[in-house]
Amino acid sequence: MEYLGQIWVRNATLYPNKHAFVYGDRKITFSELNRRANRLCNAMSERGIRKGDRVAILSKNNPEYWEVYGLAEKGGIILVPLNWRLAAKEIKYLLVDSGARAVIVSKEYAGLINSLRPDLAAVEEYICIEGGVPGMEDYETVLAEGSPEEPEVGVTGEDICYIIYSSGTSGLPKGIVLTHRGQVENAKAQILELRSGVNDIYLAVVPLFHSGGKGVTLAFWYRGCTVVVAKEFNPREVLETIARERVTATFMVPAMVAFMLNLPDFAKYDVSSLRTLFYAGSPMPLDLLRRAMEAFGHILCQGYGLAESGPLATYLSKEDHLFHGTEAEVKRSNSCGKPAPGAEVKVVDADGKEVLPGEIGEIIIRSNRLMSGYWKQPDKTAETIRNGWLYTGDMATVDAEGYIYIVDRKNDLIISGGENIYPREIEEVLYTHPAVLEAAVIGVPDEKWGEAIKAFIALKESASATEEEIIDYCKQYIASYKKPRSVEFLPELPKNPSGKVLRNVLRRKYWEGRQRNV
Amino acid sequence: MEYLGQIWVRNATLYPNKHAFVYGDRKITFSELNRRANRLCNAMSERGIRKGDRVAILSKNNPEYWEVYGLAEKGGIILVPLNWRLAAKEIKYLLVDSGARAVIVSKEYAGLINSLRPDLAAVEEYICIEGGVPGMEDYETVLAEGSPEEPEVGVTGEDICYIIYSSGTSGLPKGIVLTHRGQVENAKAQILELRSGVNDIYLAVVPLFHSGGKGVTLAFWYRGCTVVVAKEFNPREVLETIARERVTATFMVPAMVAFMLNLPDFAKYDVSSLRTLFYAGSPMPLDLLRRAMEAFGHILCQGYGLAESGPLATYLSKEDHLFHGTEAEVKRSNSCGKPAPGAEVKVVDADGKEVLPGEIGEIIIRSNRLMSGYWKQPDKTAETIRNGWLYTGDMATVDAEGYIYIVDRKNDLIISGGENIYPREIEEVLYTHPAVLEAAVIGVPDEKWGEAIKAFIALKESASATEEEIIDYCKQYIASYKKPRSVEFLPELPKNPSGKVLRNVLRRKYWEGRQRNV
Repeated sequence: MEYLGQIWVRNATLYPNKHAFVYGDRKITFSELNRRANRLCNAMSERGIRKGDRVAILSKNNPEYWEVYGLAEKGGIILVPLNWRLAAKEIKYLLVDSGARAVIVSKEYAGLINSLRPDLAAVEEYICIEGGVPGMEDYETVLAEGSPEEPEVGVTGEDICYIIYSSGTSGLPKGIVLTHRGQVENAKAQILELRSGVNDIYLAVVPLFHSGGKGVTLAFWYRGCTVVVAKEFNPREVLETIARERVTATFMVPAMVAFMLNLPDFAKYDVSSLRTLFYAGSPMPLDLLRRAMEAFGHILCQGYGLAESGPLATYLSKEDHLFHGTEAEVKRSNSCGKPAPGAEVKVVDADGKEVLPGEIGEIIIRSNRLMSGYWKQPDKTAETIRNGWLYTGDMATVDAEGYIYIVDRKNDLIISGGENIYPREIEEVLYTHPAVLEAAVIGVPDEKWGEAIKAFIALKESASATEEEIIDYCKQYIASYKKPRSVEFLPELPKNPSGKVLRNVLRRKYWEGRQRNV
Repeated sequence: MEYLGQIWVRNATLYPNKHAFVYGDRKITFSELNRRANRLCNAMSERGIRKGDRVAILSKNNPEYWEVYGLAEKGGIILVPLNWRLAAKEIKYLLVDSGARAVIVSKEYAGLINSLRPDLAAVEEYICIEGGVPGMEDYETVLAEGSPEEPEVGVTGEDICYIIYSSGTSGLPKGIVLTHRGQVENAKAQILELRSGVNDIYLAVVPLFHSGGKGVTLAFWYRGCTVVVAKEFNPREVLETIARERVTATFMVPAMVAFMLNLPDFAKYDVSSLRTLFYAGSPMPLDLLRRAMEAFGHILCQGYGLAESGPLATYLSKEDHLFHGTEAEVKRSNSCGKPAPGAEVKVVDADGKEVLPGEIGEIIIRSNRLMSGYWKQPDKTAETIRNGWLYTGDMATVDAEGYIYIVDRKNDLIISGGENIYPREIEEVLYTHPAVLEAAVIGVPDEKWGEAIKAFIALKESASATEEEIIDYCKQYIASYKKPRSVEFLPELPKNPSGKVLRNVLRRKYWEGRQRNV
C-alpha cells in the first residue's frame, strides 16, 4: 500500500458484503461505502474540486465522515477535519488559512458555518450532510450526481492527505501536513502493536477529526474490521453499544475510561466482548488503571504521539500493563512505553545529547510518518523538525530498560525560586487523594518567587476537602518547595475534545497582559 | 524502517537483555547478537568484502546463520543462502553465478565446499562456523577481529539484501533478487496477519535459506520475540522443544505437521503453549487439517507466495480455518486465502483478463515486496514481471467471495486426449484413500493420448493397496478420463527441502531425451 485509497479498494474487493460501518440502526457494507466515496470524489471533481484542493469537514462522528475522508484518500483532495469544539472565529481562521474550496458540514453546525460565509471568499461549495439547509447543497444529492466508478486521480504516497490543525494553545493554530505514505505506515504500526484481526469489531468514539481517532480507526478498518461509530462520547451509550455490538476493541482517553467506571451501575453492563482497550493522551493515574484492569481485564495498552509525529510514536503493550503488584510494574504503568515500529524516539538535553536514565530531556522523534511540515509555515517547520527529528516539546525521562516517562510539556514548566518544577509530578500526588476527581497545577505570577504553584481541583461527587488539607497532603509526598501555595476548587476542569485538561485555559487569567505565558 | 539493519538496532535498544535466540543450551541476547553481527560486518569490511559484494552461506539452522544474515542486513553485503539439499555441482553453479567473494559454511559442509575450491576462482574467503577445518578461517576468530561498533555503511531500502536461488525445476536455477525495503514490508505483512506480539516464542524449524523460513522468523524477531532455533526438522525433537520452551508460534509445511501427528505417541507431548501454527507450501489435505485442528486447536493459518513474490502473497486466517462443519468451510480449507496486506493478487486468462468464479487462470501478483528481478537475467525477468505484475505460473480459481484456490503449476498440467488435467485434483482424491500416506500424479508419454496419467503412492505403515484398488477408488470420485492409468508404489516420494513432492523428479525418467518436459 502506498496511498490510502488502495485500502478502500482492497476492502471492497476482499469483503464486499461485510459491514464496514454500524451507526445506530444504519449499516453500510465495504462495497457500498466504496461506491459512495467514489460518487463523492467524482461529483466534486465535476464541480472542479480536484487533487490538491482543500476541503474542510465540520461534523461529529458518522459514516459520512469516513466517506469524506475517502475524498482525500481516493480522490487526492487535501482534507481539513475541523475540531467541533472550536469557536466560530477559530473555525473561520482555519478555513481561511487552509484555503478550503468546499466545506462539508453536519446539520448542527450549518448555522455556524453560514454565519461565517461573508468572510470565506475562497469557499465555493457548501454541502450539508443531512441536507435541508437553505443555501447549502444536500450531501446525498451531490453523491447521486457522481459516478460510482473508481476515480482515476493518480494519487501517490508523497501526496498530502490531510491538514490537521494544532489546538493553538501557544499562538495561532498550525496546520499539520500529513502524507498518504505516512498515514499508511501509521496504520501499519498501529496494527502491529494492536494486533487487530479481521474479526475485530472496533468502536470509534474518539472524534474522527483527531489524528489519533482517525489513525486507530484506520488501523482496524484496514484489516477489514467492522467499525461501530459513536457520534460522541457518552459513558452509558458507549457501554450499551459495546454490549449490543459485541465490540472487541476501542480507543479512549483516560477521562472517558474514568467516566465509565464512575457510573454507579457500571457493573450491569456486559463488557466481556472487549479484548483491547487502547488509550492515549496521557498515562492513567494508578488508581484509575487498577480499577480499569479490574473491570476490563488485562486488555489495556497505551500509545503516545502528536499529530506532528503522525501520530504513533511509542507504545506500552498489554504485557507491560500486567500487575503482579511489583514496584517495577507499578512504576512502568506511568510510562508511555517504548518506540513503536517505524519510529525512533530519543530523550535529549539542550545539546541534543541523549540523557542518562533519570535525567529530564526533550522527546525527539524520527519516523516514517512524521508530518511533512506546518502548512505554509516554513519557519515553524524548520524550528520543529531539525535534521529529520521532530522536537516535541514534551519533557521526559528514560529508565534503564528504555521505557519513556513523560514528565511534562516544555511550556508547562514552572520556575519557582529558580527551581524547575513539572506540574504533573504534583498532579500525580493530588490524584492519589481520595476526594480528588480531577487536578491541574500551574504557575501563577509571584513577586517573590517569580512563579508560585497553584492547584485546581474538582472533587468527587459528595466528597469534600479544604485547601489546607490538600496542601498538607502534598507535603507528605513531595518536597516542600513543590507543594501548592494555593488551591482553587472548581466543579469541573477545562478540557480539550480529547479529554486533556487545559492548563493554558487555567493560566490565562493570571498571565493576561504579561509578556510571557509561563 | 527502511532497511533491515534498523530492526537489529531497534531490538538491541529496546530489548538488550532479552534472549533473541535459544539453540539447545545456548542463549544469546539481542544486544550480544547485535554486537556479534557488527563484529562480523566490520571484520569482513576490513578484509575488503563490503556493500554490494556477495557472500554465500551453507549451513543448517543455527544462531550464526542469523548473524550472517546480519552481514547483509547491517553491512550491506548481498547474502546468498544456499539450499543444503543441493548436490555439489549445483552448489558450485550458484557460487559461480552469484560471484560470491566469501563462503561461510558449517562444519558438516566444509568438505563439500573444499572439494569445489579449484573451480571457485572468485571466492577469496572461506570461513567455517564451528572452526577447526584446515584451509578455512574460524568464524569466531574472524568475529574477534571485528569491532563491535555499529558499521556505518549507508544501506538504503532500495539496496539488495539477498539473492535466493530458485530450485531450478525448469532449467537452470535463477537468482531471485530481494531488496531491503521489500523484506521489511514482507515482515510487516506477516506480522499484520500473524498478529505476533513481543511475548511470543517462535520456533524456527523451516530452513533459514528458504525465503519463507527466513521471512516468518523475521516477522517474529522484528517484534522482539525470542526465537528458538531447530537445526532441522525432526518430529520428536520439535515436539520436545515446543513443550520445553513453551513455544507459542511456528511455521511448518504440511508434511511436517503430518509427521508429528503420525507419531503413535503424539498425545504425550504438551503442545498447549502453541497459539499459532502457520503453514505454507500447499493447502493441507482435509483429513490432515481435521486431525491437526483436533490436536492443536483453532490455531492454524496458511500463507501462499513464491520467493519471487517476496514471498507473502495471500493468507488464509485462523478464522477461515474454523470448522462448524459447513460445506463452505470445508471447501475454503483448500483455499490459499485472500491477498495479504500490501499485495494485489489476480487470476487471469491468457489475455490478462480476470477469470470468472470457477474458471482457471494464472495467478499474477503486484506488491511492495516483489523481487527486483532475476540476477543477471533481464530476459527472464521481463518474461516474469510484466507491467509490474509477477506471473507466477500457478494456475488457480477464485470463488464468489474472492478466495483463491491453486489448481496446479502451469508446468504440471497434463494434456491427455486433448483434455486439460491438473494433477492436484487427482492427488486430492488419492489422499482421501485410507491407505495412502503420500501421492503424486504426473503425465507420462502415451502414443494414443499424448499423455497418460500415472500415480505414485507411498502407503501408510502396515497399510496395503493394489494398483487396481486405487484406480477403482478414483473412478468413484472423478471423471473416468482423469483416473490414473497406472499406479506405482514407492517407499517414499521425492521431496524438496520444504517437503513439497517433486513431480519433476518423478517425471524425469519418462521424459528424458524428449523435447518438452510436459
